[in-house]
Amino acid sequence: MSMKLYYAPGACSFVPHVLLELIGEPFEPVMVKLHKGEQNEPAYRAVNPRGQVPVLVDGGETITQILAIVGYLNDRFPQHAFLPTEPLPRARVMERLAWLNNTVHTTFTHVFMPYKFVDEPEAQRQVKAFNVNVYRGLLQDLEDFATRVIGQGEPWLGGARVGPLDAYALTVLRWGGLGGIDPTGFPTLWTQANKLAVHPAAARAIERERLQLNLYRPG
Amino acid sequence: MSMKLYYAPGACSFVPHVLLELIGEPFEPVMVKLHKGEQNEPAYRAVNPRGQVPVLVDGGETITQILAIVGYLNDRFPQHAFLPTEPLPRARVMERLAWLNNTVHTTFTHVFMPYKFVDEPEAQRQVKAFNVNVYRGLLQDLEDFATRVIGQGEPWLGGARVGPLDAYALTVLRWGGLGGIDPTGFPTLWTQANKLAVHPAAARAIERERLQLNLYRPG
Ligand SMILES: N[C@@H](CCC(=O)N[C@@H](CS)C(=O)NCC(=O)O)C(=O)O
Ligand SMILES: N[C@@H](CCC(=O)N[C@@H](CS)C(=O)NCC(=O)O)C(=O)O
Repeated sequence: MSMKLYYAPGACSFVPHVLLELIGEPFEPVMVKLHKGEQNEPAYRAVNPRGQVPVLVDGGETITQILAIVGYLNDRFPQHAFLPTEPLPRARVMERLAWLNNTVHTTFTHVFMPYKFVDEPEAQRQVKAFNVNVYRGLLQDLEDFATRVIGQGEPWLGGARVGPLDAYALTVLRWGGLGGIDPTGFPTLWTQANKLAVHPAAARAIERERLQLNLYRPG
Repeated sequence: MSMKLYYAPGACSFVPHVLLELIGEPFEPVMVKLHKGEQNEPAYRAVNPRGQVPVLVDGGETITQILAIVGYLNDRFPQHAFLPTEPLPRARVMERLAWLNNTVHTTFTHVFMPYKFVDEPEAQRQVKAFNVNVYRGLLQDLEDFATRVIGQGEPWLGGARVGPLDAYALTVLRWGGLGGIDPTGFPTLWTQANKLAVHPAAARAIERERLQLNLYRPG
């Protein structure tokens, strides 16, 4: 039985989506239309009571949380070395992934879904505006990191192999465009996102999700 | 050279603090007084530019992010089995840890430091009140999980061995008390926290941090 991935176009599920394409074994992609609220319908709540993507199903087991799915795919398919095997290099990648997940990602949630944090429309407007600024600073932090890694001669953000950091970085950079932040203002991240977009495995995920990298509209 | 842990009493650094006590090798605990703003002084920013605990220093290398530190200590001291070795059980623990870290923990940050999300005092008050309610629901979710695990006859939240889930659960339950949520209203979590508190290794960490488990004041 092949693995199944519940994903939404442009969402954080892009991270495991790219990994599954890199693994290259057949899998069943199941699209969840977040803009239509499908994540809140009983059918999807039965899959994931939290009403979120990504969800990976393997051998009847359901795994949620990007970091758990990344670790699981790394353990199941060690030949792809999605995470380094040595403790320190592995900790370095995990530290970046955890920060992307608990800080960058959650900051964007305030921009995109401020109603998850406060009720009043005026307070929501303020939460959104405040967090767009925080988000810009976080993208700059990620840009500095990427510039350091690439400056050391590495082709990808995790080192020699394309992996979860590259897919997560593309995702959060692209989200910035939705929030009014020009992705081309982060030259290393922008170059890396375009490089990932033409990697055959990632290109298949991008094609399936019909993603446009630059969502920024000036003005 | 022994490992060094930068921690703050009652903060999320309790998770690696307990793991280091479980490992049992000498380490240097360095207290950071968050209520005095020491995390924002140049001396500490030189250790961690993000101004947060925990930070683990090992052999001159600085590692931040709870999840990265947990993984690193697990890799360095595999005999303690802080994480299961089989892919699926490991994914189950990681899924809970990631959710504690990216959802439960970050929700409490809105209660404790609402100024990290919005400027206006009135909006901060609203963000705080909204997230106390969210937090109560998340503790109930954790309680349900804990009741399931303990109901299966396991002694600890991650199974047979005491580990990061137990320390994180105690931490977020204790934080609830600060937010006006009675920890004894979550019987399994409360029982487990008290059980952890008398585990010799955890007891040493609790003693050093001078933690009181129940911070709830009715009224
Ligand atoms: N903590 C989760 C977060 C997942 C998440 O934020 N998913 C978003 C898409 S990027 C989602 O499904 N949102 C739908 C909703 O919240 O209604 C993880 O790391 O996997
Ligand atoms: N994402 C970090 C979060 C660490 C964190 O939230 N640390 C808090 C204490 S629980 C802190 O140092 N806060 C001080 C501040 O933000 O000023 C991790 O997982 O390690």
